[in-house]
Amino acid sequence: MKPPNIVFMLTDNIGYGDLGCYGGGITRGAPTARLDALAAEGMRLTNFNVEAECTPTRSALLTGRMPIRTGCHRVIPPGIKQGLAPWEYTLPELLRDAGYRCAIFGKWHLGNVQTRMPTRFGFEEWWGVRDSTAPAIYGDLIGFDPDEMDNPMLWEGRLGEPCVPVQPYNLESRPFVDSIITEKSVAYIHEHARGDKPFFLYIPYSLVHHPAMPHPEFKGRTRGGDFADCMVECDHRSGQVLDAIEEAGIARDTLVVWASDNGPVLIPSLGPQADSGPWRGCLGTAYEGQLRTPCILRWPGRVPAGSVSDQIVSVMDFYRTLAHLADAGNLVPDDRVLDSVDQSEVFLGNTDKGPREHLLCFIKDELAAIKWRQFKMHFVEFQPEAGRRTRISLNNPQLFNVEQDPKEEWDIMEPNTWIAEPINVIMRDYHVSVAKCPHVPPRGAGPGVKGDIHAEEAKATPASATGKGRSLTG
Amino acid sequence: MKPPNIVFMLTDNIGYGDLGCYGGGITRGAPTARLDALAAEGMRLTNFNVEAECTPTRSALLTGRMPIRTGCHRVIPPGIKQGLAPWEYTLPELLRDAGYRCAIFGKWHLGNVQTRMPTRFGFEEWWGVRDSTAPAIYGDLIGFDPDEMDNPMLWEGRLGEPCVPVQPYNLESRPFVDSIITEKSVAYIHEHARGDKPFFLYIPYSLVHHPAMPHPEFKGRTRGGDFADCMVECDHRSGQVLDAIEEAGIARDTLVVWASDNGPVLIPSLGPQADSGPWRGCLGTAYEGQLRTPCILRWPGRVPAGSVSDQIVSVMDFYRTLAHLADAGNLVPDDRVLDSVDQSEVFLGNTDKGPREHLLCFIKDELAAIKWRQFKMHFVEFQPEAGRRTRISLNNPQLFNVEQDPKEEWDIMEPNTWIAEPINVIMRDYHVSVAKCPHVPPRGAGPGVKGDIHAEEAKATPASATGKGRSLTG
Repeated sequence: MKPPNIVFMLTDNIGYGDLGCYGGGITRGAPTARLDALAAEGMRLTNFNVEAECTPTRSALLTGRMPIRTGCHRVIPPGIKQGLAPWEYTLPELLRDAGYRCAIFGKWHLGNVQTRMPTRFGFEEWWGVRDSTAPAIYGDLIGFDPDEMDNPMLWEGRLGEPCVPVQPYNLESRPFVDSIITEKSVAYIHEHARGDKPFFLYIPYSLVHHPAMPHPEFKGRTRGGDFADCMVECDHRSGQVLDAIEEAGIARDTLVVWASDNGPVLIPSLGPQADSGPWRGCLGTAYEGQLRTPCILRWPGRVPAGSVSDQIVSVMDFYRTLAHLADAGNLVPDDRVLDSVDQSEVFLGNTDKGPREHLLCFIKDELAAIKWRQFKMHFVEFQPEAGRRTRISLNNPQLFNVEQDPKEEWDIMEPNTWIAEPINVIMRDYHVSVAKCPHVPPRGAGPGVKGDIHAEEAKATPASATGKGRSLTG
Repeated sequence: MKPPNIVFMLTDNIGYGDLGCYGGGITRGAPTARLDALAAEGMRLTNFNVEAECTPTRSALLTGRMPIRTGCHRVIPPGIKQGLAPWEYTLPELLRDAGYRCAIFGKWHLGNVQTRMPTRFGFEEWWGVRDSTAPAIYGDLIGFDPDEMDNPMLWEGRLGEPCVPVQPYNLESRPFVDSIITEKSVAYIHEHARGDKPFFLYIPYSLVHHPAMPHPEFKGRTRGGDFADCMVECDHRSGQVLDAIEEAGIARDTLVVWASDNGPVLIPSLGPQADSGPWRGCLGTAYEGQLRTPCILRWPGRVPAGSVSDQIVSVMDFYRTLAHLADAGNLVPDDRVLDSVDQSEVFLGNTDKGPREHLLCFIKDELAAIKWRQFKMHFVEFQPEAGRRTRISLNNPQLFNVEQDPKEEWDIMEPNTWIAEPINVIMRDYHVSVAKCPHVPPRGAGPGVKGDIHAEEAKATPASATGKGRSLTG
């Protein structure tokens, strides 16, 4: 059997509570009929966990490693040349080595120099936003001078060629970005549907990140303003991709994944955006409202229709899981620490007991919390309400039972001090792994690479069977 | 066509976020398969609003009037003889006058003297808890002396006879209360299924109110402790009632309503109980997490299966709606202010635009907030987190768009001062109604009743066509 096509739609800043099938939809003034139907045709995860913000989540997805290991533990800082280290062996590289075609249409945010662009990491085609979605507004802000600063652009790239800026990225082009992403994705699906190779199509939408500006056809579609209009557009765009899969006759041969990259943004100047559903917290905290985002899987005949799983899944787990489902498990590297866990048995409905019992939750380079079963230990506290993201040091960790207490309000450290035992083992194992394989510093000086990464990285990639970084365990 | 049987299950302290079909279920460690299936067979309301606590909600349900008008605007205070005034014309009285049989098995909490017991308000049979569910624990608390205080009992009553205490209500009997409620309800359904009259069976469960003590068969059923066990028991008990309806062959002739009486209780000494889902707040506040509770309707062939309505519905609305559906609209009194709105067209799926645009939200006798469309104006602020329910006076009202901002964090009073216009009209209309029909004081001295209500009320009921209080508009 030919391995499945994989279409991975990753949306931006949609919270756990925004989709109808997660309790949002009409209660948020923005019905999401297409995505609700997608969930009814597949599996909906209720304990899908992402990283603390945009860049780390994308790094985790593509490397199967905690972002603290890859130097991508925070958003690429504007003005600093940075990104995913060249020796990472990404999911598209792995899938290409397994015979897939790979393309990305959408937001990259994993590097702002040529050597760290998507076409250097296995994608054969790219069109989209290079960095954050936010810079669209820069040109309209007081004090920003495009002659002095990096002027936001939309980019394009092809394997073997330098990526090129093709169009200014500003408030004029912003509302059209996701319609273009969709057009290109739809065309790609039709073009490759009956090809000799399966494909991996990664669609990191810029919807519904601020500035949330709906396409003119969606402006005013709801009574909920731009954000709700964007949600409805996002549902529609996702539906267009699903329609293309259907029309191309490859629905049964295609695993669709739909997820969001992080929790809601709560910033006073933006006003209400996404919603965290029953969970507390927002982007910039380690509460469940940041960690858990919607994630829906569909693969007709393989993933049970209408199913729901509450097992802990990390965005990192797609690395091993998709490798396995693509029949490319043999290509998963064993020369570095992979934090990915194979969730195929959960996704295929063969078990309701998942393989992941714990998860380390970093905010930037700080270990903020550890999840273990239904418990969660916090090492720092955040006050996320209404845009305040104050960080408070704790003398003693806080412990929450997030199943009993989704809003993480009841610290049950006393009398549950027994929980230090499993948590300490998790922490020890993590530190042992770091001692064995030291973290890649953000600017990239790692094993086999001396001096400034940007001068060196073109020649830094060690030769190996996979062509990528087989020297990380030193 | 014979009017439908009506089975109304009212649970206690279950929050918006607890059932699977409202985003809880397995994420809360307590699957609710039966109730999720009930929702799939009927309509799920996402904007169903109750009153601020147990007694007011029950008063509103049975009278169709705001509790501030009926003297039941707060929980019956232990030690004070109080309750629903005898001149209220309750829903069971109305339905009895329309030819229904009526029974209640469960918690009353609308009066603690003989003249204010359920069998004085149209119910022909009663077994259950008279007051709050909480007193079960009194006998085990330091300082409580049953010889000095009102010793908690379970009660029984029949039309025309005094109600009698039948059994101590304590930690020994507490876990069995809801299995007995269910047994009696199931027996009632079978007995009256093929009778000449339709029936109104009101089942106010004591589940999942604290002390949350599952029946021994459910103890340890989940990994979530007593509360989660009680949730699973509640799902099971509701399922037993549904099974009885099915087995008796009357499913198509029976309108089932399932709801909760108020939002989650957040009290430090109790720890986590119910969850408010995506909404902020808890019992004792006027936030959506208190106002909105789950509500499911099923009437095969009449209420559209698998439907969801986001229209504003109040628990008061069942008065007019059930009167209408029971073909007894002509019995709805016109001599008093009714706040109930007929929601039949919404429930029957004939419109997606409900008749209720606003709702006054009282906490005890204070107007705390007004809902209007997707907006909500608060006149006082509460800090409900982790059991603190501090009341803060506001110099200026706060305004929230609860559709955009379910957690009521973003005060948008500026620039939305235009909203004072519809809100002022709502407040004026309310004050006009009060001037015309003054509130019934809690202890009951009202029109036609002089002096102490408890001495007088036996003879206080004015003669009228319905036999109940036709003098309230003075």
